[in-house]
Amino acid sequence: MKAQLGGDEGKHKFVLKTPKGTRDYSPKQMAIRERVFNAIITCFKRHGAEVIDTPVFELKDFDIAGQFDPMIPDAECLKIVHEILSDLQLGDFLVKVNDRRILDGMFAVCGVPDSKFRTICSSVDKLDKMPWEEVKNEMVGEKGLSPEAADRIGEYVQLHGGLELIERLLQDPKLSQNKLAKEGLGDMKLLFEYLTLFGITGKISFDLSLARGLDYYTGVIFEAVLLQQENDHVEEPVSVGSVAGGGRYDGLVGMFDPKGRKVPCVGVSIGIERIFSILEQRVEASEEKIRTTETQVLVASAQKKLLEERLKLIAELWDAGIKAEILYKKNPKLLNQLQYCEDTGIPLVAIVGEQELKDGVVKLRVVATREEVNVRRESLVEEIRMRTSRP
Amino acid sequence: MKAQLGGDEGKHKFVLKTPKGTRDYSPKQMAIRERVFNAIITCFKRHGAEVIDTPVFELKDFDIAGQFDPMIPDAECLKIVHEILSDLQLGDFLVKVNDRRILDGMFAVCGVPDSKFRTICSSVDKLDKMPWEEVKNEMVGEKGLSPEAADRIGEYVQLHGGLELIERLLQDPKLSQNKLAKEGLGDMKLLFEYLTLFGITGKISFDLSLARGLDYYTGVIFEAVLLQQENDHVEEPVSVGSVAGGGRYDGLVGMFDPKGRKVPCVGVSIGIERIFSILEQRVEASEEKIRTTETQVLVASAQKKLLEERLKLIAELWDAGIKAEILYKKNPKLLNQLQYCEDTGIPLVAIVGEQELKDGVVKLRVVATREEVNVRRESLVEEIRMRTSRP
Repeated sequence: MKAQLGGDEGKHKFVLKTPKGTRDYSPKQMAIRERVFNAIITCFKRHGAEVIDTPVFELKDFDIAGQFDPMIPDAECLKIVHEILSDLQLGDFLVKVNDRRILDGMFAVCGVPDSKFRTICSSVDKLDKMPWEEVKNEMVGEKGLSPEAADRIGEYVQLHGGLELIERLLQDPKLSQNKLAKEGLGDMKLLFEYLTLFGITGKISFDLSLARGLDYYTGVIFEAVLLQQENDHVEEPVSVGSVAGGGRYDGLVGMFDPKGRKVPCVGVSIGIERIFSILEQRVEASEEKIRTTETQVLVASAQKKLLEERLKLIAELWDAGIKAEILYKKNPKLLNQLQYCEDTGIPLVAIVGEQELKDGVVKLRVVATREEVNVRRESLVEEIRMRTSRP
Repeated sequence: MKAQLGGDEGKHKFVLKTPKGTRDYSPKQMAIRERVFNAIITCFKRHGAEVIDTPVFELKDFDIAGQFDPMIPDAECLKIVHEILSDLQLGDFLVKVNDRRILDGMFAVCGVPDSKFRTICSSVDKLDKMPWEEVKNEMVGEKGLSPEAADRIGEYVQLHGGLELIERLLQDPKLSQNKLAKEGLGDMKLLFEYLTLFGITGKISFDLSLARGLDYYTGVIFEAVLLQQENDHVEEPVSVGSVAGGGRYDGLVGMFDPKGRKVPCVGVSIGIERIFSILEQRVEASEEKIRTTETQVLVASAQKKLLEERLKLIAELWDAGIKAEILYKKNPKLLNQLQYCEDTGIPLVAIVGEQELKDGVVKLRVVATREEVNVRRESLVEEIRMRTSRP
């Protein structure tokens, strides 16, 4: 709904009507949410996603199900995480990767009894929040693991790296004897080869401490975390932590198959609520101005009696797909029109005047720099597109 | 979720996960819905809309509130309806326009007692579904209007046209004596002048039979209807009827103003459920293939051992924003890759082979025509963009 109250002729406001009494977000918050959703949906669609049963607006998961050659879909999931986090410009991030089979193999060679695999795994999962000593105490004190086994685990879970570490562990006298670990490490090597082809290994870390609590993962697991950043402008640094995660869960899904066979699956979940609050905090802290409309240009006039010319020009722009507004006044003052752009963040003003009409041009003003250029009317659409396309 | 079941190596399917047990639409239906929503939202944003409080996906109303010079926002609302219906390619349409003040003035000069204005108005509202004789019977028999008054109404409500009709009615000996009617006709003239500047009067009809039931309209009212089309391919013609409507409701909204003053408002409502079912029926009838993904290109290979090259190329395409897929097989057969494109409607195939790699080119195949051209690798993104941009 666009609303104008009071006498300020330069000001009006559009707000799309809201149907039911749903959540209560401000236009600013909605603009942030939309930006995040757009980044996610655009990425999902870039990877061939199909939407069913629900507005795309609620989606935040991407899964690949089916019997495929190893690690190709898994690598694509990591590429998707990498694309979304890069696109959202959340700051520096790292995607930790591990494999359930490597974890289980590691527990076996460290002397953890089979029956304790899951509970020890959930202790390892706390390593991103607790120092190793505390995790070890939990393993030994609460969970009854021998201190020697815990120490052996401790040596492994502090390792992280890339292809080189994988190669080293494939030669590890203990791990290489374990069938599960060997299988997991072999696939991890393949995964990193694919990630190298995708050009994203710089932000991916094979990390033996990554466990992820959920029991249903059966192969590759991963988690994307934001890295703390030095930022002078932010007094209280925004909290870092996991913003996406996923993995392979081959045992879980049988429902797609008419014969009830299990279907291999790998999936990504994006932590959108977390991403929203990080971005909102950041915007709050930086006093960055968030635009709530996408209007590219205001069609204005410098003299009176030019409403008709403004209407003709704006219809041309709308019909060419340009996002454009006018003030709903017959004879608005130029100052009010410029002020409206300042207030709402509209970057360009297309000014029609007697002289411009005679010359077949439109004066295009860049609000930020006050630069003005005469643009031939037939080139105006192209000029506006060029000046407002994202870098 | 992408799913592949059974042995058909060429087939896989992406479906984004659905969170809660919401509605049950097929990917085809969702694709139609998305197309409709996109057209509406894109248009609203083109007109400076701002989103609050709700996913844009639920929105279908656009309102302009505020004290503005007459008919400028009203004209914009009609422009919006025109843009959306043109964009959706629903077929030929007509936007009927009238004004509550003209209706009320007309009732007065025809001798309808004040107390019967609303009930007679609701009879007039039935003229799009009933012949005049039946409406007249209702007015006279059920509602106690004199037959003479009804006949006078009958003469007016069968009129429809454009500026010329407005001019004529402004000279009408009876109507021109009525203050309300004169005001309404004066504004209608202004509105049509603005619509002429917008270049859309061809599909707008000033129609004295348009009444719209809702009591809260105070000025301009309008309703967009689809016109029956001759179509040999459709046995049962899709039902026609109203797909959008709106009008001015100046008395309704006081809540935006801190002092409780009434705020002038004009708004559009888009009948999306109706539009969905029309499009679904049409797709059903025409056997038109609806794509459920937006993938522009499949990255394929003609020989074995080219998985790495496929991965490198697809990463390049993804990074350039191209929507691309590969089959998740190390060595898929070319035939299966082409078949996958046929099945899912992917228009282009980018084929890498030994020779192409040596020559620094990619073979680009147009699925529909089987045309193949070698494109220099550095021009591939541009070529795909060009060939898949909407006309």
